[in-house]
Amino acid sequence: MPVLRLLPLAALLLGGTACAQGTATSTPAPGAEAGHPNVFVSPSEIEAIRAARGQYALLDATIEADVALMEEAFSAPIETPPPGEAGGYAHERHKQNYREMKAAGLLYQITGERRYADFVRDMLLQYAEMYPALGPHPLSERQVPGKLFHQLLNENVWLVHTIIGYDNVYDALTAEERATIEAGVFRPMLEWFTGEGAFSLDRVHNHGTWAAAAVGMAGYVLGDPDLVEQALYGTDKSGEAGFLRQLDELFSPDGYYMEGPYYARYAIWPFFYFAEAIERNEPGRQIYAYRDGILEKALYATVQTAWPDGTFPALNDGSLYMTVAAPGVVLGTDVVFDRYGGDPTLLGVARFQGGVVLNGSGLAVARAFDAAETIPEMTWESVEFRDGADGEGGGLGILRAGAGEGQTVALLKYGVHGLGHGHFDKLGLILWDQGRDVLDDYGFARFVNVEPKYGGRYLPENDTWAKQTIAHNTVVVDGRSQNDGDRRAADAMHGDRHFFDGDGSDGVQAVSAFARGYYPGVDMQRTVLLVEDEAFDHPILIDLFRLDADAEHQYDYPLHYDGVPITASFDLTGHADALRPLGDDAGYQHVWETGRASVEGDVQFTWLDGHRYYSVTASGSTTGTTAGNAPTEVLLGRTGANDPQFNLTSEPLVVLRRRAADHLFASVIEPHGYYSGATESSVQARPRVAAVRVLGSDDRASVVEIEDHDGARWHVLVNNGAPSDGPHTATVGGQAVTWTGNAAVRPVR
Amino acid sequence: MPVLRLLPLAALLLGGTACAQGTATSTPAPGAEAGHPNVFVSPSEIEAIRAARGQYALLDATIEADVALMEEAFSAPIETPPPGEAGGYAHERHKQNYREMKAAGLLYQITGERRYADFVRDMLLQYAEMYPALGPHPLSERQVPGKLFHQLLNENVWLVHTIIGYDNVYDALTAEERATIEAGVFRPMLEWFTGEGAFSLDRVHNHGTWAAAAVGMAGYVLGDPDLVEQALYGTDKSGEAGFLRQLDELFSPDGYYMEGPYYARYAIWPFFYFAEAIERNEPGRQIYAYRDGILEKALYATVQTAWPDGTFPALNDGSLYMTVAAPGVVLGTDVVFDRYGGDPTLLGVARFQGGVVLNGSGLAVARAFDAAETIPEMTWESVEFRDGADGEGGGLGILRAGAGEGQTVALLKYGVHGLGHGHFDKLGLILWDQGRDVLDDYGFARFVNVEPKYGGRYLPENDTWAKQTIAHNTVVVDGRSQNDGDRRAADAMHGDRHFFDGDGSDGVQAVSAFARGYYPGVDMQRTVLLVEDEAFDHPILIDLFRLDADAEHQYDYPLHYDGVPITASFDLTGHADALRPLGDDAGYQHVWETGRASVEGDVQFTWLDGHRYYSVTASGSTTGTTAGNAPTEVLLGRTGANDPQFNLTSEPLVVLRRRAADHLFASVIEPHGYYSGATESSVQARPRVAAVRVLGSDDRASVVEIEDHDGARWHVLVNNGAPSDGPHTATVGGQAVTWTGNAAVRPVR
Repeated sequence: MPVLRLLPLAALLLGGTACAQGTATSTPAPGAEAGHPNVFVSPSEIEAIRAARGQYALLDATIEADVALMEEAFSAPIETPPPGEAGGYAHERHKQNYREMKAAGLLYQITGERRYADFVRDMLLQYAEMYPALGPHPLSERQVPGKLFHQLLNENVWLVHTIIGYDNVYDALTAEERATIEAGVFRPMLEWFTGEGAFSLDRVHNHGTWAAAAVGMAGYVLGDPDLVEQALYGTDKSGEAGFLRQLDELFSPDGYYMEGPYYARYAIWPFFYFAEAIERNEPGRQIYAYRDGILEKALYATVQTAWPDGTFPALNDGSLYMTVAAPGVVLGTDVVFDRYGGDPTLLGVARFQGGVVLNGSGLAVARAFDAAETIPEMTWESVEFRDGADGEGGGLGILRAGAGEGQTVALLKYGVHGLGHGHFDKLGLILWDQGRDVLDDYGFARFVNVEPKYGGRYLPENDTWAKQTIAHNTVVVDGRSQNDGDRRAADAMHGDRHFFDGDGSDGVQAVSAFARGYYPGVDMQRTVLLVEDEAFDHPILIDLFRLDADAEHQYDYPLHYDGVPITASFDLTGHADALRPLGDDAGYQHVWETGRASVEGDVQFTWLDGHRYYSVTASGSTTGTTAGNAPTEVLLGRTGANDPQFNLTSEPLVVLRRRAADHLFASVIEPHGYYSGATESSVQARPRVAAVRVLGSDDRASVVEIEDHDGARWHVLVNNGAPSDGPHTATVGGQAVTWTGNAAVRPVR
Repeated sequence: MPVLRLLPLAALLLGGTACAQGTATSTPAPGAEAGHPNVFVSPSEIEAIRAARGQYALLDATIEADVALMEEAFSAPIETPPPGEAGGYAHERHKQNYREMKAAGLLYQITGERRYADFVRDMLLQYAEMYPALGPHPLSERQVPGKLFHQLLNENVWLVHTIIGYDNVYDALTAEERATIEAGVFRPMLEWFTGEGAFSLDRVHNHGTWAAAAVGMAGYVLGDPDLVEQALYGTDKSGEAGFLRQLDELFSPDGYYMEGPYYARYAIWPFFYFAEAIERNEPGRQIYAYRDGILEKALYATVQTAWPDGTFPALNDGSLYMTVAAPGVVLGTDVVFDRYGGDPTLLGVARFQGGVVLNGSGLAVARAFDAAETIPEMTWESVEFRDGADGEGGGLGILRAGAGEGQTVALLKYGVHGLGHGHFDKLGLILWDQGRDVLDDYGFARFVNVEPKYGGRYLPENDTWAKQTIAHNTVVVDGRSQNDGDRRAADAMHGDRHFFDGDGSDGVQAVSAFARGYYPGVDMQRTVLLVEDEAFDHPILIDLFRLDADAEHQYDYPLHYDGVPITASFDLTGHADALRPLGDDAGYQHVWETGRASVEGDVQFTWLDGHRYYSVTASGSTTGTTAGNAPTEVLLGRTGANDPQFNLTSEPLVVLRRRAADHLFASVIEPHGYYSGATESSVQARPRVAAVRVLGSDDRASVVEIEDHDGARWHVLVNNGAPSDGPHTATVGGQAVTWTGNAAVRPVR
């Protein structure tokens, strides 16, 4: 465990030992007056990196990658084209330029080769000719414009990296060159950021953090404390905005970033950049101890949400493909390893990343990686993160069984909405198994940087499909999205934690949460259990989704599976000669209805995904609720309707529809058997679970019985009342059943 | 290169040195009288394997896998259940039993452990109690029934493996045990195979080869030359049927197996099993020299059709997932390596296979693998295989550019129909790039061994979709399949080779073939060029599909792509609120029409698949043909219509439709750029090719011009007349153009 967590808060506030093992202490950082470089790496760290070359694989990999990047850059003339559209040539060129200037600056320091410094100088002089004449970018849409880029964000990012490059070649330039560059580029850019762009800088939002980092880091490099003050406290220096306020509000006390891990991996990038600059120039600010070490928690809350293969869950407007190798996570991993005590599990993350940052923290990771006898698997335990700045905004629960890439993971989302990138998916579930998302979240509808796809921006279907409730594995009431798709309403509320038990020593882990008020008159509770039982080859997921309402509603329980339908308990008959959309709005207009059945009793549906079969067995009878034994309508669908530009990928789903006031969707999702196309082997293509029965469910408890095809039975016992270890008692069939813990699964004799 | 190919035929016929390096010569094989084991491995080979244990990774891997298999087998009682349905428990149990008996027999020999022999004995004694009372399997469908299995084929396979197990424990059994087993199992089974099952044994078909191998190998083990004669020459011993006739007719002179590589990997298995038995018992038959070394050619024609990742093209009723690690290919690879001169490229195949067979040939491979300084990549050159028993039945052309898994491969199919597993897909094209099939063949509609999917048998959609012409990348005339889907008619004809140039030293490789008479009154020629040109980052494919008819027809040119549509030269507008099938029959009933456009001029369509973009640019103007400049109708589709059981996977396609008598579809398929979701980078999402123009096309030549977005132009020059190196001349715009070779691509000044 990292050291910081074990220290009493008082010690931190008194300027304790938080950074005892860090670079900043072992190699005293220069103050603002101490010369250059001073924001990302110090002269003594450069010395150490020079001495370490050829010794540590991760360090060498990064240096070689940067050298290769620069060889490519040297092979063509420097270009600073007039601003262009997002994803277009000019846009990409300016992005590549900042990457090259940062790399060139660091390589100048590490190698001493003058050509790297000249490169940064020449490029900045070229920018200095163009920049002063630029106006606001004409292609800005609903965003604060930059001048080089259509949105200010890109320009902030440009400056953060460019200022590192400049810092590193500062001493290699003449005073005149510096004056020309600062007057032609940095000063007018900073005026824009703190003037017209103040809205962005003063936002408590990840765009605001990039702005703060750009302004603050430039302030340190240019020796302008006023810029640093604006960055830390907002343009009015009141503290109502700025970096510290962002640290206070953008993360929950557990370090969870409200927009979700895809944004966290990007959001933490400027946080760590600016934090490093602060620590190096004003160590007295104790930035790494700030808010009980929130930066460390932010890094952990980011990497610990990742699936076992290193990709992030596609929560909110998230991508399916982003990984912990994202550069902001590399920076965060190295800094946290170096400044918070050297947690060896982070070396497992570093292995996945395959490189380090080029400063003392990166060197520390590369050295420890090389010295370690074994590098641990990137295996995280079950974990819950509270959401909301005060930790009272619900949370995210992640249950994990198994180790490494073989883990089975169930994720339940019950936090805050997450601002503009939030999805209307409270109590959404994702199931990860066999190295893939078996019940998946669509993530965003966007092809980032793919110019022909709407300039790489969010596609219209992001609003009309990806954000809608039906696009997620959570119940849709009356065919409407939560909060009726109103973001302001959603931002004003949050899910509520009920209990989280990730211990699993008895084979049962569980998480339970409420979502109240997301639909008028309907309260929802979802309890997800991840159960390891010797009767089953793989962990099974038990899902109890409880709806509590005064009036009757239509409840749709969707499962976004992947793969091929194999068999079902009902007449699995697809529509043959015409497809129509499943509905008119709230995302339903994007689903082709491919089949429909009315099922008496349990619903069982089996599909093949990769090397395993998966079956959902859902209760037909619902004793104790108003749904009674009415048939379940089963809808099969596939995305792609009302998608004229083919912006959506084609994905199947199955929806169980019931009408009721109170209802409990009780289902088991069971991975089973084995299939291989290469060896043409198939084992146990049919599920073990034979029936799921709701024996009773109300606001005190839910009791569900599971029976397998050999007649073995289990009771699932969940406390719906105030959380406690119990004992809890429910009456089932006239008999009292008692259990301890908020949730239990036990065999029936 | 293998030795045999370099030997003059006369030397082989005179009983020459074909097997000089093989096990059978270096370790003289026992005759039929020489005791046991005698069909798969000899006592001296067993001695060598015993001595080699612990030294060679591939050998040890196989032995350890068999030991593990048997440990699992020992952990449960022996079961010989009453026969059941395909894919069901009994079916799978009997399959597992033969695997275990073969492994146990070999392990008895290798380890000397008595328990392995007892296992084979006890299981066979159990079978001997059950088998005599069995009648024909009741669940047989349109097949010769077995008794243990629903089809005789499975029972033949059972005997081939079981007899190896029995051969290896023969000397460990008492005479009484042997008598009981032979009278209870082998004799009645062989009576069934040569009596009721004679139809299968006498078929020149891969089922016949399994029957021949079973009967012949049993003949050697039981010391019954009459069985061997029936196996070699047919039940009437006339030579009209039997193993030698199968060797004569089932492979082309190049060793290509008419049903395609998926069946080849299974068909060669009994060929090599029985050949080994013959060579060991009757070396005078010179089986490995038979028909100019046809067995060697058959192995090469199998492994050389594989894609760079080791999977086989899904030609005909083929799977998308079968690989060169299939056990029949492992056997063939080891035997060919050992008996034909030790081609080191086969060691690359062995690496992929990860194991060897447990006889002298497997030992030879394991030893060579261990001794080799480097194992070559499994990289094959461009190659053409003639099809048909006489080599006059068209063929299969495979163009390859690049090395290893990075190869780009274009495959054109112009051979015979391939009997009952054949598809109506003459001139079908498959493109492989970046480790995946970019323009793919659906293969079969079947989930082998998946019991809930129609017992694992061919699904109805195999006939109605997978076999139909529209399911393939080849032109469909008037919405009908080739030969109107009549298999007998298709079997009576074949494609015609035109030319094949796989040299590629000038960056241009090409294959051209005709399909005449597949549609009444319409002759077809397809010329595919794989071109490496420095203007393009990856090899591009130029496709000239020429149609020659007296009357006007509807021509559909389908491309079965994969991935997401990115952009198009036309209004890419998908149907929003209703989907209908593309047609009523010939496979069109299985395609949902997802979009339709009428395009004047060139058609350009770009999609994203994996890390690359792909664009097809197809000529709109067709000078010199009757299509003129009428618009092209573009149809977008997705499989899944009229598929009530969801037996088809959901795959997109695009179809270009023209009406004409004579017509040339001239198109360029261009991989371009780079995309990564993990790094969110996108490069060159738009194609380099800007236009494709048909300057002229008739039965003498086709001349096509390609222009890129920088205005650079190339001429594509193809000789459609009698193949020759030329020079060839065509008149284009009143000017004579002359080129050498059957196909050329050259820049236009």
